[in-house]
Amino acid sequence: MRIRIRAPYLIFLGDEPDRLHAKTGVGIAHWRPALCTGQYRLPGSGVDLGLPDMTPAEAKAAGAATMIWGVAGVGGTIPAHWVAPLFEAAAAGLDVCAGTHSSLSAVPGLASAAKSIGVHLIDVRSPPADLPVGTGAKRTGKRLLTVGTDCVVGKKFSALSITQEMTARGWKADFRATGQTGIMIAGGGIPIDAVVSDFVSGAAEVLSPDNAADHWDVIEGQGGLFHPGYAAVTLGLLHGSQPDAFVVCHEAGREYVAAFPDCLLPSIPHLIEHTIVCGSVTNAGIRCVGVCINASALQAEERETCLRDLSALTGLPCVDPVATGVAPIVDYLDEHF
Amino acid sequence: MRIRIRAPYLIFLGDEPDRLHAKTGVGIAHWRPALCTGQYRLPGSGVDLGLPDMTPAEAKAAGAATMIWGVAGVGGTIPAHWVAPLFEAAAAGLDVCAGTHSSLSAVPGLASAAKSIGVHLIDVRSPPADLPVGTGAKRTGKRLLTVGTDCVVGKKFSALSITQEMTARGWKADFRATGQTGIMIAGGGIPIDAVVSDFVSGAAEVLSPDNAADHWDVIEGQGGLFHPGYAAVTLGLLHGSQPDAFVVCHEAGREYVAAFPDCLLPSIPHLIEHTIVCGSVTNAGIRCVGVCINASALQAEERETCLRDLSALTGLPCVDPVATGVAPIVDYLDEHF
Repeated sequence: MRIRIRAPYLIFLGDEPDRLHAKTGVGIAHWRPALCTGQYRLPGSGVDLGLPDMTPAEAKAAGAATMIWGVAGVGGTIPAHWVAPLFEAAAAGLDVCAGTHSSLSAVPGLASAAKSIGVHLIDVRSPPADLPVGTGAKRTGKRLLTVGTDCVVGKKFSALSITQEMTARGWKADFRATGQTGIMIAGGGIPIDAVVSDFVSGAAEVLSPDNAADHWDVIEGQGGLFHPGYAAVTLGLLHGSQPDAFVVCHEAGREYVAAFPDCLLPSIPHLIEHTIVCGSVTNAGIRCVGVCINASALQAEERETCLRDLSALTGLPCVDPVATGVAPIVDYLDEHF
Repeated sequence: MRIRIRAPYLIFLGDEPDRLHAKTGVGIAHWRPALCTGQYRLPGSGVDLGLPDMTPAEAKAAGAATMIWGVAGVGGTIPAHWVAPLFEAAAAGLDVCAGTHSSLSAVPGLASAAKSIGVHLIDVRSPPADLPVGTGAKRTGKRLLTVGTDCVVGKKFSALSITQEMTARGWKADFRATGQTGIMIAGGGIPIDAVVSDFVSGAAEVLSPDNAADHWDVIEGQGGLFHPGYAAVTLGLLHGSQPDAFVVCHEAGREYVAAFPDCLLPSIPHLIEHTIVCGSVTNAGIRCVGVCINASALQAEERETCLRDLSALTGLPCVDPVATGVAPIVDYLDEHF
């Protein structure tokens, strides 16, 4: 009941000139370099992931299983001159995976071509069918969820950083993806915000199933409990994840919900308290284990003051995952779990 | 962007022997008798709504616009011998409206028949397309939402009772339906639990648009903020409804979430407090204005004690909508808004 993407990957970059519009490809190459066989670029491309350039046929010969759509076209559509490479990938025997707004199966002829060749089209925007209603039943293993004061504050990056730190220490840990880019990085997951609301917590339950007692699922958060548009997603994900631990993510200096100038963000202590009240529905032992600040807008000295003050306020490790790493949070987990 | 059902109605009851399985038809006949032209029963029916028996053609001649599916087949499916009446209704020029699990358009030939005749098939389980993301922007008019300690505690009945009491006093008020039966009673609405989670609060915003300053939208609640399966629906509905007032609904004697024996219900004061914290995201002035208890399991004396104690605890009017009516809650609104 989860999306699964077969590795390794050929990353399609088209002729996209701007690295910012290739953030999916950039993210996969950064977090999963071992899974990337090569990149497929068209003449005019301005993006280089540092991977070998390959055609789909060359990538297939080198062992690739899936071509991943690593770029965002304008409006999420598929430009006309990027259609031929899709057929080329299918013809070479590669699955094709994308998160574009206009789905792959809407490309005339592509679905039937894929079917006759025996490859799969994987749309990471489409949740699996037959998701259950959440039950709240306790599962084995340990879970950490990243929660945000808002959208786009580093919940995915923080979860990936924490998973990487755990794995580097030899812990058993899996990153569990709930958004499109995360799913491509993880090779699977559920696009939780596309799930019908009755099944959101059930989908989160499916995403982090029973596991070994000393295994951590590190779950990518979505939205925010105080977000006027997306809080339903956030609460269902929190209930279904039944996390033992959560990490608050925030961008330094942000005071209002992005794009909602009338909507003040919660303070971090208030968000911690509220997350505990809400999360207690499915895990009475839920606790906050740290704060991740995106402090990219601050100077080094301001950043250190910000993290030190926040740590004094919360009594928890407060880090900037990019600048300081997340080791103090994993140390804290080591001590308390 | 809301479902709309054209009145008046012919209520289809099939040959259903059991009134309990005809609760949709029973509800419409109870709450909207003026909209019911007649009932259509097959030989063997054990249900009588007290309406004139009519065929679709007779109902059309009497002015009916829509045949409403008033019964729940086993598993929500459409029994084979109930299919012919669907074609009969379409042939007579009636729209057909149902909330069955297997949708009307899945009945072979029905959609094309309806199209050629020029009538509509209305599936109250399918939310409208193109719902927006919620913005939290303040709308004009006043709103009351029923919230529950659990599912099936009387949220729809309470909202309908309050709307009826307001209307009887000459207030401007509309019942806003969020579930299948409610939508059929109201003649429109949005099945909020079938909406993709990203759009739940946006759907609730569409459901209760700007209105006159002295107009009340009385919104049917769904699920419960402490329900392990459905809280996402509840929170999105709360945020999008931006209620000025809410009424807590509870069934006397229920201690655990129905079908979830490990999940203790919140106390009513705790639910009030938590609803205010959550609802403040889109309406800082949100307040509780009363409690509706389904006390059908209690003797009259026990019921009176229960309501009196609860009123002392909360400082609010506490009623049983069936046994005592909801006038004290509307009195309270009259005094405080």
